[in-house]
Amino acid sequence: MTVRCGDTLLFQTLPVIAAGAAVGGKKESEGPLAAEFDELSADNRFGQSSWEAAEKYLQLRAARLCLQKAALPQEKVQLALAGDLQAQCTASSYAMRELGVPFAGLFGACSTMAEGLALGAALCEGGAARNLLAMASSHFCAAERQFRTPLSYGAVRTPTAQWTATAAGCCLLQPQGEGVGIAAATFGRVQDYQVKDINNMGAAMAPAAASTLLHYFKDTGTEPQEFDCIYTGDLGQVGSQLLRELLAAEGLLIKNHVDCGCILFDANEQSVKSGGSGPGCCAAVLCGHILPRLRRGSQKRVLFTATGALMSQTTFLQKETIPAVAHLVELRAPEKEK
Amino acid sequence: MTVRCGDTLLFQTLPVIAAGAAVGGKKESEGPLAAEFDELSADNRFGQSSWEAAEKYLQLRAARLCLQKAALPQEKVQLALAGDLQAQCTASSYAMRELGVPFAGLFGACSTMAEGLALGAALCEGGAARNLLAMASSHFCAAERQFRTPLSYGAVRTPTAQWTATAAGCCLLQPQGEGVGIAAATFGRVQDYQVKDINNMGAAMAPAAASTLLHYFKDTGTEPQEFDCIYTGDLGQVGSQLLRELLAAEGLLIKNHVDCGCILFDANEQSVKSGGSGPGCCAAVLCGHILPRLRRGSQKRVLFTATGALMSQTTFLQKETIPAVAHLVELRAPEKEK
Repeated sequence: MTVRCGDTLLFQTLPVIAAGAAVGGKKESEGPLAAEFDELSADNRFGQSSWEAAEKYLQLRAARLCLQKAALPQEKVQLALAGDLQAQCTASSYAMRELGVPFAGLFGACSTMAEGLALGAALCEGGAARNLLAMASSHFCAAERQFRTPLSYGAVRTPTAQWTATAAGCCLLQPQGEGVGIAAATFGRVQDYQVKDINNMGAAMAPAAASTLLHYFKDTGTEPQEFDCIYTGDLGQVGSQLLRELLAAEGLLIKNHVDCGCILFDANEQSVKSGGSGPGCCAAVLCGHILPRLRRGSQKRVLFTATGALMSQTTFLQKETIPAVAHLVELRAPEKEK
Repeated sequence: MTVRCGDTLLFQTLPVIAAGAAVGGKKESEGPLAAEFDELSADNRFGQSSWEAAEKYLQLRAARLCLQKAALPQEKVQLALAGDLQAQCTASSYAMRELGVPFAGLFGACSTMAEGLALGAALCEGGAARNLLAMASSHFCAAERQFRTPLSYGAVRTPTAQWTATAAGCCLLQPQGEGVGIAAATFGRVQDYQVKDINNMGAAMAPAAASTLLHYFKDTGTEPQEFDCIYTGDLGQVGSQLLRELLAAEGLLIKNHVDCGCILFDANEQSVKSGGSGPGCCAAVLCGHILPRLRRGSQKRVLFTATGALMSQTTFLQKETIPAVAHLVELRAPEKEK
């Protein structure tokens, strides 16, 4: 039975991420983490007829590579939790049509990967699934026309803007066994600091990351320095700075913070302004970059906090402010046999 | 620990729906189930500035009425699972901004209520939450302009079209205790019978309902006649007929089937064509109509199967077919003390 402390779930049997896979597009293949992806394509359409269909393909590839790495036949997947940024989450649903496994759709915007891991770990520990996929994706071109303007308008990007990753990540969760352990999870509460700028997701999401991290530290009695790294995704440069300021105001000086949106791209060379974003950004960084470090043991214990901005183009045009949520999982290096 | 059999979860401690509340709009207040709603408004804007904001208000009212009926302070809610039809699920996220409880967003289109109950029951049984809200909503005006055409175009509705309910339903789930029991849950697999007609959701969703029901009967070794009623939501007249034909082709003659979309409105008097739809339709029918029957004991054991069509206006314009999913929960009347 999972134990609950405040907003945080403490897993007793230590569900594991048995395998993970990351797939990315052209810009991701030119970035600093290129070597860590399982598959990259120079064609952002991935041979599909539309960007939306390309994103479906991204998720499907990530799922299939993940299952391949775990040597698990698709039929053994008992539940998939997946989400994306497209209106009505169609990248996930259409990918699941191909995959054919039981599927519960999530919407957490860029927080989807952590939401899926948190729900998935709880479901695995409770006996609801022995093999569960948690996945998320985004596609720069599909997202931009959903949230901002069609790319062909050539709108000038502001310094606070983030670049939606064309990427997907997929994790296979199991109740226990070999793999990166999920020790705890905190579901976030929606925060809204009245940000209205659709080109400044980092500012909208930083308060959500701060809120969830503060809940986690309080619930578990831990301190930031106990972790090898506190990963967030995807605040970018602007949001990361704001997060550190918000935590400093609470007396927490964070020196081990890394934002997935700040490491996926080279800010100077790749013109991504404040950094990367999109549900696929931290999903791919988790699978390609973070999990291998934990598996190697070069990191022992990290926090993975994914943040999502919960607006739509409709709420933006209706002059609503941008609420955000952040979900967190505590990850542990696999225990070595003695 | 939850036991798993095929695609079906069998709950051992019988998580319960401790309370439920249904809220609806003008058309719902003129329909045959009007007396069963907890709150109705003749103003489809509910005093808000937009239809989208009105839907947020609907969810919020449903949640607050549900908590009021259970005499549970909001602070005791440990997790809310919610979703809706708006792009990027903004009705739910903005409602959760007001409610302020930990929140995991779902997207299951019109299947959201059953998805939330299935996930929620598993989380409650596994120890992840003691008080969990599962909720879903829809708003006719907000949905029509998302999926079809702006209302002001005055497009003629086809005979197969369904009327998206302006309604919300919210259930409070607890691991055990007094209330309607959730005995089992089946997560659906995405089905696609190549339907492309955006005005015929029933045809797109019927195969999903059939698939999930067939999985459930096989996994549990039960037969349709063992249930007082097999509820689906929301296939409408057209989809209901197709479901019965699909099941008949498998040798199952269903005589105890009721579709939430067929009972929320009066098809003759209210010009709803094939019936009601939208995540709020079966959510409100569940909370206002089904749960009270189980609580009174006039029904002892029912299946609640909610179906969702997983397309968007973008996939429709891209000539994609419409995939669908259905999730199911088995509900039981509260056990009477002897």
